[in-house]
Amino acid sequence: MRIGVIGYGYWGPNLVRNFAETAGVEVKWCADNRADRLAIVKKRYPSIQVTEDAGQIFDDPDVNAVVIATPVSTHFKLVKQALERGKHVLVEKPMTRSVAEGQELLELAEKKGLVLMVDHTFIYTGAVRKIKEILDGGELGELHYLDSVRINLGLFQSDIDVLWDLAPHDLAILTYLVSAKPKFVSATGSDHTGRGLVDVAYMTVQYADNFLAHFHTNWLSPVKLRQMLIGGSRRMLVYNDMEPSEKVRVYDRGVKVTTEEGIHKTLVDYRTGDMWAPKLELREALGVECEHFLECVRFNKIPWSSAAAGLNVVRLLEGATKSLAKNGTRVAV
Amino acid sequence: MRIGVIGYGYWGPNLVRNFAETAGVEVKWCADNRADRLAIVKKRYPSIQVTEDAGQIFDDPDVNAVVIATPVSTHFKLVKQALERGKHVLVEKPMTRSVAEGQELLELAEKKGLVLMVDHTFIYTGAVRKIKEILDGGELGELHYLDSVRINLGLFQSDIDVLWDLAPHDLAILTYLVSAKPKFVSATGSDHTGRGLVDVAYMTVQYADNFLAHFHTNWLSPVKLRQMLIGGSRRMLVYNDMEPSEKVRVYDRGVKVTTEEGIHKTLVDYRTGDMWAPKLELREALGVECEHFLECVRFNKIPWSSAAAGLNVVRLLEGATKSLAKNGTRVAV
Amino acid sequence: MRIGVIGYGYWGPNLVRNFAETAGVEVKWCADNRADRLAIVKKRYPSIQVTEDAGQIFDDPDVNAVVIATPVSTHFKLVKQALERGKHVLVEKPMTRSVAEGQELLELAEKKGLVLMVDHTFIYTGAVRKIKEILDGGELGELHYLDSVRINLGLFQSDIDVLWDLAPHDLAILTYLVSAKPKFVSATGSDHTGRGLVDVAYMTVQYADNFLAHFHTNWLSPVKLRQMLIGGSRRMLVYNDMEPSEKVRVYDRGVKVTTEEGIHKTLVDYRTGDMWAPKLELREALGVECEHFLECVRFNKIPWSSAAAGLNVVRLLEGATKSLAKNGTRVAV
Amino acid sequence: MRIGVIGYGYWGPNLVRNFAETAGVEVKWCADNRADRLAIVKKRYPSIQVTEDAGQIFDDPDVNAVVIATPVSTHFKLVKQALERGKHVLVEKPMTRSVAEGQELLELAEKKGLVLMVDHTFIYTGAVRKIKEILDGGELGELHYLDSVRINLGLFQSDIDVLWDLAPHDLAILTYLVSAKPKFVSATGSDHTGRGLVDVAYMTVQYADNFLAHFHTNWLSPVKLRQMLIGGSRRMLVYNDMEPSEKVRVYDRGVKVTTEEGIHKTLVDYRTGDMWAPKLELREALGVECEHFLECVRFNKIPWSSAAAGLNVVRLLEGATKSLAKNGTRVAV
Repeated sequence: MRIGVIGYGYWGPNLVRNFAETAGVEVKWCADNRADRLAIVKKRYPSIQVTEDAGQIFDDPDVNAVVIATPVSTHFKLVKQALERGKHVLVEKPMTRSVAEGQELLELAEKKGLVLMVDHTFIYTGAVRKIKEILDGGELGELHYLDSVRINLGLFQSDIDVLWDLAPHDLAILTYLVSAKPKFVSATGSDHTGRGLVDVAYMTVQYADNFLAHFHTNWLSPVKLRQMLIGGSRRMLVYNDMEPSEKVRVYDRGVKVTTEEGIHKTLVDYRTGDMWAPKLELREALGVECEHFLECVRFNKIPWSSAAAGLNVVRLLEGATKSLAKNGTRVAV
Repeated sequence: MRIGVIGYGYWGPNLVRNFAETAGVEVKWCADNRADRLAIVKKRYPSIQVTEDAGQIFDDPDVNAVVIATPVSTHFKLVKQALERGKHVLVEKPMTRSVAEGQELLELAEKKGLVLMVDHTFIYTGAVRKIKEILDGGELGELHYLDSVRINLGLFQSDIDVLWDLAPHDLAILTYLVSAKPKFVSATGSDHTGRGLVDVAYMTVQYADNFLAHFHTNWLSPVKLRQMLIGGSRRMLVYNDMEPSEKVRVYDRGVKVTTEEGIHKTLVDYRTGDMWAPKLELREALGVECEHFLECVRFNKIPWSSAAAGLNVVRLLEGATKSLAKNGTRVAV
Repeated sequence: MRIGVIGYGYWGPNLVRNFAETAGVEVKWCADNRADRLAIVKKRYPSIQVTEDAGQIFDDPDVNAVVIATPVSTHFKLVKQALERGKHVLVEKPMTRSVAEGQELLELAEKKGLVLMVDHTFIYTGAVRKIKEILDGGELGELHYLDSVRINLGLFQSDIDVLWDLAPHDLAILTYLVSAKPKFVSATGSDHTGRGLVDVAYMTVQYADNFLAHFHTNWLSPVKLRQMLIGGSRRMLVYNDMEPSEKVRVYDRGVKVTTEEGIHKTLVDYRTGDMWAPKLELREALGVECEHFLECVRFNKIPWSSAAAGLNVVRLLEGATKSLAKNGTRVAV
Repeated sequence: MRIGVIGYGYWGPNLVRNFAETAGVEVKWCADNRADRLAIVKKRYPSIQVTEDAGQIFDDPDVNAVVIATPVSTHFKLVKQALERGKHVLVEKPMTRSVAEGQELLELAEKKGLVLMVDHTFIYTGAVRKIKEILDGGELGELHYLDSVRINLGLFQSDIDVLWDLAPHDLAILTYLVSAKPKFVSATGSDHTGRGLVDVAYMTVQYADNFLAHFHTNWLSPVKLRQMLIGGSRRMLVYNDMEPSEKVRVYDRGVKVTTEEGIHKTLVDYRTGDMWAPKLELREALGVECEHFLECVRFNKIPWSSAAAGLNVVRLLEGATKSLAKNGTRVAV
């Protein structure tokens, strides 16, 4: 199998490195519209062909699949061209700028029988896969809430706000972990650079039952935090990605609600117990993901981070943007 | 000066102990409607008179001031009686259940020329007083946001929700630190015990400029977090109340936004520098507060945590409750 | 049962408070040679008789037991008098200034049939009792080492060095957890105040097998650390007393050593696995200890922190002092 | 300038990568006696010549300098050959297995007028360079102690013990920071694999004044700690290499010792104040070091990590080994 990588900016080098080290695949092309970036590719990987014109890759009948790591505003056009030329696609998150675009790509890929996968890297980490296993095993009981914080002194993006930049990671994890359908999205935020793009933002996702998910994204934080709390009726879980080793901790704590019929009174019992930090698979997530992409292409499988998953993330982001414009009023999704 | 303390539940014992150790004041009475609580008072402080009827304290002409540490639903009635009988009052937070009640008490105290102070304990800590000093000195520059997290596996209250239970601490700090007037409040949350009281809740306070304050309160968290971030244009600050020593950290970090006129482009510069943790006054906050109350009574001063401050907190809570009922739509305050 | 407490300095108030709250015991007397300390006792506990002469307590036939919380140099004389007058004794750690003194007291208590218990508070904490349970259950396998760090910007003592001040806590834990007999002690340290008393000191205790215990004590540390590592062949344990909640963590990690006969080669295998933080009993250790003392007196039981345990601690301290004088050369114990 | 790298095991790849990215130098050769390691070199760097015979590199007149990253037992022979063939040398730490070997190499390099530098990587980190600046500026006052902990579940070495494996890092830092000459070394430790090589070890270095340095090295720790405390008469410093950002913290804390003449009494005053974490240079240490090596070769400068510094480290390690053999009795160095 031969692939071409389009975009050699911040994340592209990681994609090239991981595919280069994956057995059974050859990185044949790398495209970028900046000559200096291509020079770096050439120095590191003399065997890779470089081009400023992604079209050359689409034209190459040897190429089975392309990896698109360009700014989000270009995703729709590039993915569409690739699919139309019969290439399988792995595209950076967020998949597209709108649900309409995402829907069109999803349908095109289905029609063509091609794999369209979104690079939701975090769901390929040992931590998130272990959390999935714990949730699927019912260990947490009924889910009460998911609270996510992803903040740091961030690189301001020129074309997207802090929600579109940081929240896709956590929305992809939410989508991966929780199969229920979200009902409403609301968001508040503030823009301190006068560009019309929020740099501090909060987003709430509501579900039919009382499950609630909340996301804090911030480019103006002095400290870097990457933390997710998941509360269930039986146990609770903390996923702290800044911890060097015990990233996932399961707390045998919970609240039991009972009602004494006779006295029409609600009783709340607390339970505290042991804490447990499972051993996690330490392999680089992107390596796992590259292999998964190959496997999906070869055996025509649906990726964990399928176009449908990517579309779910875009749907929540689009809803958040609408809510921001309506001063935080909730929006049905 | 002689005082009576009404309510010897969770917080009352701390109030009695601190007033008992404050020079120039005598705790003459303690009232509670539970005989077993009064027995404990009697054993620890044989010299304090106990009663199940708070009225006895109001009737005692020897008593100059009363301290009210009963459930919030009783505050209005008890404070009103005390003021009408000419007693100065220190009342637990939140001051009342509604703005209307709070407004009436504030006006009554003014009319009577009595001190009405609210027990916003945190603003008497060395940490918050140091933060106030830093903000007033302009060290952070223009304020961008305040983000507060106060979560733990909490004691479910029977009459109030998690916002009314936990947020008053942080809203009192906000009110103390930031003099600008809030414009809108919105809140989302979820109730997992079927009592109609949210146990996980998020609250946003918006201001005229782009300053934004956000509060996460949660009774269902496996871990206890007490953290506040304050971001400014020049520096940023973290107040972590769980840290045993360096609770306040000032980061010489920031973002500078400039616009290149010629090219109509916004440029964002990052600045990272040293971190600094100032030495904090370690005295117990409640002791500082008790002395402050005495001083206000003696010299007819306006307390730092005045009835007006208490009313500001109630106004934000009332707005949040309205927003919760309207699915998170923002409410003017 | 009626007791007298001798010494109302730093720790005495905690002893009086805990015994006062223990069912089945009355604190009848409190002695201190400072009138101002006795005034404080009188104010807090009007029913307790105070005296500057401990002899009055020994003379009172109503008193069954005495608690001695005076400087260590006075322990021998006071304990001896108490035992000779037929009183059971709970004495502060370290028990005495020398092994000879400790041995004499132990024998005297045995001869008189009285309880002589040493206040090794830490072994009554939920954390250390849980560790004992884990070790006794064989969960760690064969013990390899115990490493203890107890450092902070400390209160310099006028009569003892940092080892005699801080190490008794950890040596008491060692003695409680490990039943094997130590063979050698060595110590190095440094004195920065010119008083002939080390303020930074390291102490090693060697055992017959390859088990090694090491203690770092320091009055000149900018940070407060209270950490103990215990390494075993099957699992390893960290006891961090500064953690607010998960003080004890058990790591399913270890090293397996095998020898391939044919190739005369040692093979070392690593094993990493889950981490587990057991729920701990949260009751105040001193309260548990006071009840234990009463129970030992009533039912003539040997205390967990018996005179023999106290003597073991003094033997290690005496050895360390000798080693310090011999520039760190090891001393048999 | 052209160099050859000998040894492509654990650390060699980092050396090759950093020299490959350093301007003004070409990695011409890489030697290793394992063909599979050389195949990896060839794949990553097609332009580098590979060989199983280091002698080929010494024979190449084009090569100005060699970098030796082989097991320590081979250092002496390889460095000697390189120097004799007129090559400048950068050698892994520890420099040699004995002081005698190190002395011979130091003298040979001087005689030949060649640079002999030891890869004490840590002294090229932003953290250690900042600490050096703080100490040289006298900010800590008179130094009281240095306490180092470097522990983790480690890779057992087949030919050296835990002291020779881990302590060189910290002894190099000590040598870099403190110019005073050490007087005595003592060490205790324990071997749990029956190979005659300690895997847990403690080492004390004593100086003429009361300055004391202590090192805890451990291959059997469940947790990874990399922490150094440096106590001075005016301020104290913590260097925690596991912290992602604020690795160096300076505490304005100290102890002031005075003597009241009249009463022949030593008085100790405590001072606590602010904490300060200076901004650190974030560049990869090895890159800084590679450039420094080039500069020393070009301008005939003495490296920060000179052969003399390397010899100081070996002298302390040799002393520790002797002390271990004498059951911890101190050894003059």
